[in-house]
Amino acid sequence: MSQLENIITDVSRLFIGEAVPDFYYHDTYVKNIKPVYAVALPKSHEEVKALVRFAIEKDLVIIARGAGSGVAGAQVPIKGNELIIDLHLMNRIIQLDEETLTLTVEPGVLIGNIHDFVEKKGYFYPPDPASKHSTIGGNVATNAGGLRAVKYGTTRDYVREMTVVLPDGEEMTLGSLNIKSSSGYDLKDLFIGSEGTLGITTHLRLKLIPLPKANVTILQALETAQKATEATLEILKSGVDPSGVELFERSALHYAEENLGYPLKSQVGQAYLMISLDGNDQKELDGRIDTVQSVTKHLTLESHALNAEEAKKNWALRDNILLGLTKFTEFELLDEVVPINKFAELIEATKAMQEKHGLNVLNFGHAGDGNVHTLLMKDDLTEEAWTKKRAALLKDLYHKVDTLGGLPSAEHGIGIVKKEYMDNMTQTINLEYMRQIKKIFDPENRLNPDKIF
Amino acid sequence: MSQLENIITDVSRLFIGEAVPDFYYHDTYVKNIKPVYAVALPKSHEEVKALVRFAIEKDLVIIARGAGSGVAGAQVPIKGNELIIDLHLMNRIIQLDEETLTLTVEPGVLIGNIHDFVEKKGYFYPPDPASKHSTIGGNVATNAGGLRAVKYGTTRDYVREMTVVLPDGEEMTLGSLNIKSSSGYDLKDLFIGSEGTLGITTHLRLKLIPLPKANVTILQALETAQKATEATLEILKSGVDPSGVELFERSALHYAEENLGYPLKSQVGQAYLMISLDGNDQKELDGRIDTVQSVTKHLTLESHALNAEEAKKNWALRDNILLGLTKFTEFELLDEVVPINKFAELIEATKAMQEKHGLNVLNFGHAGDGNVHTLLMKDDLTEEAWTKKRAALLKDLYHKVDTLGGLPSAEHGIGIVKKEYMDNMTQTINLEYMRQIKKIFDPENRLNPDKIF
Repeated sequence: MSQLENIITDVSRLFIGEAVPDFYYHDTYVKNIKPVYAVALPKSHEEVKALVRFAIEKDLVIIARGAGSGVAGAQVPIKGNELIIDLHLMNRIIQLDEETLTLTVEPGVLIGNIHDFVEKKGYFYPPDPASKHSTIGGNVATNAGGLRAVKYGTTRDYVREMTVVLPDGEEMTLGSLNIKSSSGYDLKDLFIGSEGTLGITTHLRLKLIPLPKANVTILQALETAQKATEATLEILKSGVDPSGVELFERSALHYAEENLGYPLKSQVGQAYLMISLDGNDQKELDGRIDTVQSVTKHLTLESHALNAEEAKKNWALRDNILLGLTKFTEFELLDEVVPINKFAELIEATKAMQEKHGLNVLNFGHAGDGNVHTLLMKDDLTEEAWTKKRAALLKDLYHKVDTLGGLPSAEHGIGIVKKEYMDNMTQTINLEYMRQIKKIFDPENRLNPDKIF
Repeated sequence: MSQLENIITDVSRLFIGEAVPDFYYHDTYVKNIKPVYAVALPKSHEEVKALVRFAIEKDLVIIARGAGSGVAGAQVPIKGNELIIDLHLMNRIIQLDEETLTLTVEPGVLIGNIHDFVEKKGYFYPPDPASKHSTIGGNVATNAGGLRAVKYGTTRDYVREMTVVLPDGEEMTLGSLNIKSSSGYDLKDLFIGSEGTLGITTHLRLKLIPLPKANVTILQALETAQKATEATLEILKSGVDPSGVELFERSALHYAEENLGYPLKSQVGQAYLMISLDGNDQKELDGRIDTVQSVTKHLTLESHALNAEEAKKNWALRDNILLGLTKFTEFELLDEVVPINKFAELIEATKAMQEKHGLNVLNFGHAGDGNVHTLLMKDDLTEEAWTKKRAALLKDLYHKVDTLGGLPSAEHGIGIVKKEYMDNMTQTINLEYMRQIKKIFDPENRLNPDKIF
């Protein structure tokens, strides 16, 4: 063991064998009990390289990990004898460069801290996953999306440059400060969203944009999710360029209202849209509010442009759907995605599945980009019934997603929990080339093996 | 030869051996004289597949080609005995889907036709390379950029889905109608910008957005390119979100003014910016014009918000820089890119090189994304002196681009003319992985070999 202690000389950053805390055996929802060789918490790129070289010498498998806030099991040990490299102490914000509009960070910086840091200085890092305690490295590993992707895109669109340590201990820098490139293959986008299977990110340069000076939220009530999907299409086609179009069902909101102790501003209808608009000119924003209301008039029961306080309270309800539910039942959170015009069809299909399988289902999600968060609820089912019914429902659900032209994961990643569905829903030839690319970078299958595919 | 004629039964779509027109031996600037085996013009995905299989049987190298409007020699035969697959007859616009905001096209559709088609229906395909006669397939092959990339991104950002025929004759669909994905490696972005070395695109689904209802152009005169670069940074930081920030020097404009027979609206200063703004609300646009003028006031000599007729005339001058020059001299057009804050430093460096090498140089380009178009002019140099001086200057120039953190190509591709510089300016490890990826998809090196690297 002497070598590992030579690399990480500070004992508080090293856990070996049985000393590994329980924390490292699970992410938000997925737990595994394979014994871990050790957990090391490097503080520098050089320490990461040394750790990878150590793992090569000892023939250990490596898992790179950030905040442990994943939900797909991508960072959970499944092989036994893994060396976990926890990057959350590499959390320095290195430089805000106002001449290239970039922020240089280490991978362990929390996404909420990036938002706070740049917004104070008048800049904006748009990707906005619900978990503000996730790390930027983890966001890159899953190509995290969130609420603002409909206008601003996902994490992929904000990584200008990244340095990775490869499974052979070498390093590579992908991308650059250049905004355009037609200079060879795009290796950077291969690494983004690869869930820690190709390399370990140690350094990132992120694209920033100026912070919008004004924003507003419109809350709309609609009879059905189908009408909410139609309204979403009208909004997207109108040119108002919404920065968010969230859809949730009344049934999903119920738990948040219970938990926070106050009602949503609208109490009619079975489905709701919360539409965000941002910009720099309040009057122009008012014009866009009018446009939203006029193009959706034939579809909505109510439509409210919220004042600042209302917006805060109603967004808190939306954000509380998951937290609220936690107090009532165990659940499984999905993040399937379908073409935007299939959103309601998928939601309707989940209701038929709820009846068929006797398992309660809720839906909310990012209607503006077709990303549904379906929730399966355990309620008072036995562990056995829950496991069985859930498996049966998931099989139906992902089959339906597939027939709608969708994908198993929009923003959480495949990890281990969606591998089977990924396998069913991906063309064999695409999977085969993914495997061959994995083999190029990681011929010994050392880095997060058996995740994704 | 019977097989080839069995695949392409219409003789007007097949040229064999010496019947191959001269057109196929060159692109816009690059000519080669290696004999071509044949040129086939398929009209369907199935014909493309059959042609690739024919090439495999006969052990021929394949070059896929669109409009032949490339400028880097990527589609020029260099091996001898190539089968050229000319896709420009696969030029159907298949479907405008208003529910997914996508346009389905074949690869041979001209980019100008896409613009016209969707704009008539109120939609917008933002990528805007100068050559409206380039094909969308070619745009994807080079990740074409153009004037609007500063706001809207490049071709990469508008390809939702593409079907390719691979070098082994199999087919693969990359991407999907889904807006978000965290479902495995991003193979699609690997193919975009791969200059026809990995696969032949036969089918594309493009992302559309609503057409902005209003736009305006501001023309600014500045003392130097340095001041124009500083003004560009101020504009980008102000949040006005320009859809174009073009920079050109007075010396480059001279030829366009001569050619079109009228002057630019401003005649002071050595550098100019043309700034485009677009949106849906004219009043809000007026506010952004004020912002542009106020944040750049300390840097500009003149600043004019142009009326529609002025905008048209002054844009025609900008667009005529190359065409104007054609009438005066032979030239080489570059498309190097540097971080946005290095734009002026690069331009200044080219002037020192002009003195050092005795070769006239002009600059214009997309200041908003750091993409300089440097022009080397032959003027009345002998062929020998032109070749020698040009090579010496290019060596210096790309070295400078490299030291500024730039790349050899922003939007035209590497082809054959920039291979040497790409090789010098790219880390060995990145090049090595690009080569390994090429080998996965094309182990026999059949598809456009010896291009890029």
